Amino acid sequence: MTYCVAMRLDAGLVFLSDTRTNAGVDQIGTFRKMNVFENPGDRTLVLMTAGNLSISQSILQLLNDYVGSNGFTIWSAPNMYEATRIVGEAVRAIHSREAQALAQFNIDFNVALIFGGQIRGEACRLFQVYSAGNFIEAQDENTYFQIGEAKYGKPIIDRVVKPALSLDDAVKCALISMDSTLRSNISVGLPLDLLVYENDSLAVTRFVTIDERNAYFQMLRGSWGAQLRQVFEGIEAPQWQALPSAGDQPVRMPLPEAVPPGPPPPVPQSLAQQFGGS
Amino acid sequence: MTYCVAMRLDAGLVFLSDTRTNAGVDQIGTFRKMNVFENPGDRTLVLMTAGNLSISQSILQLLNDYVGSNGFTIWSAPNMYEATRIVGEAVRAIHSREAQALAQFNIDFNVALIFGGQIRGEACRLFQVYSAGNFIEAQDENTYFQIGEAKYGKPIIDRVVKPALSLDDAVKCALISMDSTLRSNISVGLPLDLLVYENDSLAVTRFVTIDERNAYFQMLRGSWGAQLRQVFEGIEAPQWQALPSAGDQPVRMPLPEAVPPGPPPPVPQSLAQQFGGS
Repeated sequence: MTYCVAMRLDAGLVFLSDTRTNAGVDQIGTFRKMNVFENPGDRTLVLMTAGNLSISQSILQLLNDYVGSNGFTIWSAPNMYEATRIVGEAVRAIHSREAQALAQFNIDFNVALIFGGQIRGEACRLFQVYSAGNFIEAQDENTYFQIGEAKYGKPIIDRVVKPALSLDDAVKCALISMDSTLRSNISVGLPLDLLVYENDSLAVTRFVTIDERNAYFQMLRGSWGAQLRQVFEGIEAPQWQALPSAGDQPVRMPLPEAVPPGPPPPVPQSLAQQFGGS
Repeated sequence: MTYCVAMRLDAGLVFLSDTRTNAGVDQIGTFRKMNVFENPGDRTLVLMTAGNLSISQSILQLLNDYVGSNGFTIWSAPNMYEATRIVGEAVRAIHSREAQALAQFNIDFNVALIFGGQIRGEACRLFQVYSAGNFIEAQDENTYFQIGEAKYGKPIIDRVVKPALSLDDAVKCALISMDSTLRSNISVGLPLDLLVYENDSLAVTRFVTIDERNAYFQMLRGSWGAQLRQVFEGIEAPQWQALPSAGDQPVRMPLPEAVPPGPPPPVPQSLAQQFGGS
């Protein structure tokens, strides 16, 4: 599988992807899932892919000189909307070429893309493109997209990410989200590709490939995990006496008449202490 | 959907389930997914279900007086392994009755169960039962099971839960895991059923139904969220200068020869400041 996340902030865009692919657990590979279309001063576009690798590689190959029905290529599209239409049409072109043959082997046409960046003359924009070639755009109320193994790393993003977040904080959040995913799902793996795009720079602002030796990621993983456990330990224990639970009863299945009652249950020690029993 | 989690600790068992069911977003219901088979002094067994509600209700109905191929009912099985075999056989019985008819409507035979508790004479045990009626048991290395929308709430459990955890801390962790799930997935909803079983009590130790008015859950949600953001803010920002990233380059698609180069990219202000540019 894969995990990719991108965020659209007031200050720019952050993209993060892992590099693990697998076809069964005995066929693991490392493939880059982040690709950059850059003509400095004119446009910087980032495409991340998840799903069937043969499909996403074909889309990428086709896309570089694909002329969309709008008459543009990804290099000449006048704005991000038209550029994303071209991406969607490239997906559809690969679908009509591949889907039927794959279906004969019960392989779904499974691909998901995140596409974002800036074209001179308009602001940064971020899109998610589906297998069907249709797409949606990030807005202030939903300012990020995830593809692949998205669920593990979603809660921390939901708690933290807002358009006003700084690019550095967004990087921090994306890396924590990735760390949670790496820990809970072995189909997502290092190294990571991290790209930061600062508004109006029209060139990649920062790019780094992060592996297990990366000191900042090491610090982040250790520090986040340790402090999370500290916060956990600091939260007070359930106060059972204070809970309005006296009347609550679980759904009990009726004891059949034929079943002999058990002996009186033993009084557990801690409850005995609590109620002053023997 | 559903989210249920159960943990087997040295001190006993913790079970937590939500109560939301949905068949499309316009058909939302509240159903209890936690059921207790209790003969105090003899056995306390807890069954939680996820998946197709008609299937899980039928399994439950059948189970109460179902005689397994081992000659026992759930009320007379001499140990948890034999009791779980009976649960698995009840799943298979409902499968042979329902699966074919459901398949004609393209409905999968989709059900997942967590089954745990204690029968007099042996220790607490915890099992996960699959749609096929086969099952696995929790061990010290994997001391919890989740069914339903499991991924959102998995990272916090992976970071915290070990067999030595106290029952109170396990309750705290289960509730935080549920909170993360509630926030990120609307198909999981309040109220929650929480059941604590203390080793050798052979009766339900504590049970509470938690809704939005529950003061402890309110405190936990607020406190956890706020402190998580504090920890987040306390972690230092990425130190780009310290990253060994000088040589890292993203995968750039080649600029076709026909594409005119853009004007020189503007120098972003913050980078200009950083490097002392104009």
